Amino acid sequence: FSLDLLPSKNGKELTNYFLRQVVDVLLHYIKKTFDVKSKILDFHHPHQLLEGLDGFSLELPDHPESLEQLLVDCTDTLKYGVKTGHPRFFNQLSSGLDMIGLAGEWLTATANTNMFTYEIAPVFTVMETIVLKKMYEIIGWKETEADGLFSPAIGGSISNLYGILVARYKQYPEIKTKGMTALPHIVLFVSEQGHYSVKKAAAILGIGTDNVIEVKCDERGRMIPAELEKNIAQAKRKGQTPFFVSTTAGTTVYGAFDPLCDIADICEKHKLWMHVDAAWGGGLLLSRSHSYKLRGIERANSVTWNPHKLMGAPLQCSAILIQEKDLLEACNQMRAGYLFQPDKLYNVEFDTGDKTIQCGQHIEFFLFWVMYSSSGTYGFEAQINKHMELAKYFYKVLKERDNFKLVFDAEPEFTNVCFWYLPPRLKHIPKGFERDQELQKIAPKIKALMIEEGSAMISYQPCGDKVNFFRMVFSNPATTQTDVDYLIEEIERLGKDL
Amino acid sequence: FSLDLLPSKNGKELTNYFLRQVVDVLLHYIKKTFDVKSKILDFHHPHQLLEGLDGFSLELPDHPESLEQLLVDCTDTLKYGVKTGHPRFFNQLSSGLDMIGLAGEWLTATANTNMFTYEIAPVFTVMETIVLKKMYEIIGWKETEADGLFSPAIGGSISNLYGILVARYKQYPEIKTKGMTALPHIVLFVSEQGHYSVKKAAAILGIGTDNVIEVKCDERGRMIPAELEKNIAQAKRKGQTPFFVSTTAGTTVYGAFDPLCDIADICEKHKLWMHVDAAWGGGLLLSRSHSYKLRGIERANSVTWNPHKLMGAPLQCSAILIQEKDLLEACNQMRAGYLFQPDKLYNVEFDTGDKTIQCGQHIEFFLFWVMYSSSGTYGFEAQINKHMELAKYFYKVLKERDNFKLVFDAEPEFTNVCFWYLPPRLKHIPKGFERDQELQKIAPKIKALMIEEGSAMISYQPCGDKVNFFRMVFSNPATTQTDVDYLIEEIERLGKDL
Repeated sequence: FSLDLLPSKNGKELTNYFLRQVVDVLLHYIKKTFDVKSKILDFHHPHQLLEGLDGFSLELPDHPESLEQLLVDCTDTLKYGVKTGHPRFFNQLSSGLDMIGLAGEWLTATANTNMFTYEIAPVFTVMETIVLKKMYEIIGWKETEADGLFSPAIGGSISNLYGILVARYKQYPEIKTKGMTALPHIVLFVSEQGHYSVKKAAAILGIGTDNVIEVKCDERGRMIPAELEKNIAQAKRKGQTPFFVSTTAGTTVYGAFDPLCDIADICEKHKLWMHVDAAWGGGLLLSRSHSYKLRGIERANSVTWNPHKLMGAPLQCSAILIQEKDLLEACNQMRAGYLFQPDKLYNVEFDTGDKTIQCGQHIEFFLFWVMYSSSGTYGFEAQINKHMELAKYFYKVLKERDNFKLVFDAEPEFTNVCFWYLPPRLKHIPKGFERDQELQKIAPKIKALMIEEGSAMISYQPCGDKVNFFRMVFSNPATTQTDVDYLIEEIERLGKDL
Repeated sequence: FSLDLLPSKNGKELTNYFLRQVVDVLLHYIKKTFDVKSKILDFHHPHQLLEGLDGFSLELPDHPESLEQLLVDCTDTLKYGVKTGHPRFFNQLSSGLDMIGLAGEWLTATANTNMFTYEIAPVFTVMETIVLKKMYEIIGWKETEADGLFSPAIGGSISNLYGILVARYKQYPEIKTKGMTALPHIVLFVSEQGHYSVKKAAAILGIGTDNVIEVKCDERGRMIPAELEKNIAQAKRKGQTPFFVSTTAGTTVYGAFDPLCDIADICEKHKLWMHVDAAWGGGLLLSRSHSYKLRGIERANSVTWNPHKLMGAPLQCSAILIQEKDLLEACNQMRAGYLFQPDKLYNVEFDTGDKTIQCGQHIEFFLFWVMYSSSGTYGFEAQINKHMELAKYFYKVLKERDNFKLVFDAEPEFTNVCFWYLPPRLKHIPKGFERDQELQKIAPKIKALMIEEGSAMISYQPCGDKVNFFRMVFSNPATTQTDVDYLIEEIERLGKDL
């Protein structure tokens, strides 16, 4: 029983034994994850899990369960889950299971400390500044002036929220004490392909989603600078006060990069805060052959960047980076006396907890530090270039296939490749409403079959006037050309008679 | 090198070997953590860590480092950190290192998935509903009507923010689209001993800290209901619109419980949302002998509860629970087409990601599920009662000691015990400004010495008109009476000549 483990008096041996048994379960899972012949998932419906599968009960007991039973529960938890590191898991922007990042996570869990003060996280707080400094450098900011933090376990949405929060405070410091009612009617801009978290943040921050103005995109999903200009002028005419533009470097569906330089010019002209949501695309900065796609990011006031996406770090690892120092702290600090005592024995500059919107915070960046140490800048670059190569390969193969149709017939800018599968029976229906109605149902059906078989996982969605299409995306280091070929055959096999 | 690990073709053996080596490092750390004779920390200043200690460099390389070097780095990261599970670590409300929770964390890291949809986290999404259901039950809510979520890795501050966010939406659904400018001048209430995160949330949400009204407490730190009534009436007279009262079950410094029943009556009368911040005190609900201190919590509209505090779960594990179903979703959902497709093969009710303020979310509750399974309700109860017993013991011992002075001379309501240490030379100075000036410096000095020696860690803070005092707190299952006796002697030893 757990009571026999440490800190129990004679618990040392049993603890070692038990934790090693747990690790055996995990190592077995890892082996399966990378075995391309194993199923990605063993699908069951929610009600089946609720009812209990083969004795795997999710109910919480009044009396303790044995350690043996817990090991079985752990095995079952993994057994009925989804292997997100499987070479054929393409379902999310973040996929893959990095062994070094994993080791980092195990260590972080064991260290079990909190980032709010240097006092209880001396190595981690200092290490975080080093990781952030490297990120400023890569973006092209002078480190001494910049600031940032890793948004614990929450991802890019909260990083984007931080961007808006800090921008609003910079422009209107009275927001902190007086609230929105003291401000003019502020509005912000994001492209129609930008991430939905910008709207979510506006709702949370009391700005309101109506005050998020969507800027039109070109057909590849990039914000059109002239449209932004137009929207700004319109807003001003209506008596609204523009303050913030959220650009995107790597949109979720199309993988598009907004023209950052042009938008930076507009922001400068109108004195607007420029934010770059590079949650997905940020990693591309490490590739000397592709980083030009983010040119202009060095002019941004703030950047969201998720190493857990393109750079393959485990979930979650997302940073918000702010070009102007001290804003984060001024915006968020509350100086709780019981936590941030000024009369400490060390330089309290490293007590960074008051910069955050939360209080307690898990250590999230360490896995990135240890991955960076193990890969080096060049190791990341090589991996990222490989993802780009695979995307190009995938695009070329699709282009030659009869029953696949690309959403854009042009080489991918990023690792997203969007496409439809058209079963033979649809090929003879002319393009139009009738065909669209049928085509809309194809991707969901193929995906449902795929999940039931556990053979691969890929995302689909409708977008604008386009009915459901697949979005292939490369960020999984386990994926090879063979897996890509397999996916295409699998879609054909499952879809051809639909 | 990391490139030789999985998914590298022949990486299986090396991966097993490497991860087992990592686990050896961790097991060694765990052994040290529970060894009362080992130092809690090996203190160094930030600049020393930055410069590199004994070859431990925090800098990030361009070229890959060897796996051997990484193991050394991992060892060093732990070596210079703080053992928060050490039997004499009393510095934070969350302390201790639970072996089962730790195993849960390792598993979660290995599963490396995201909670936003059932599709990619089938077991976890269903399991979370079971854990939440258990929490509603314990609070005394009817499960079918309640709702909730674990705020990933961010702790009680964000849970409190959720409480205010949802309450505001319930009262003024137009907030989501129109923002604060569409609302009347809303104000909320929290006691002067309540957590600072309530003010922080007000700043973030665009309400403003000026609109957080602090209600006076009695000398034990409990909100005075009559004062709340007065503050509400005052606000109304000023034309402000009260909408929310944040009560506290277990304040951070004093461990006080607000009189929830009386406040519930007031909230009912004025139609205000009642929130209970039970981040620290929630666990007491599991103790049949102490749960009466939270009587009235079943009438709350929302509750924050952090199993990572009193219940000993690893960081972070914090839940926000809402009595009314569907509000969380209505308030936060944005229905991103690429994530929440309606045309799936399963019951999409379990795609809970749209209820949250973020998008991606780490699995945080699993460690709690597995701890609950291993302890059972009664196991938690026994542990919590033990903490309460130790607090009582500590109080009694201090009461009898000459140079220690209790902040309140009454049996502790919770596991917080606040006290001053008075070095002999101060005992003869009469109570007053002069003595206070000296006393203010004592706790920081003793703590600095303690940290340098690495012998124990305990928090101190000033509070109101009270100069720096120590706050002892029991939540570490490794702590025994011997450690408590030791702490008292250690404070005396370090402080008697100051």
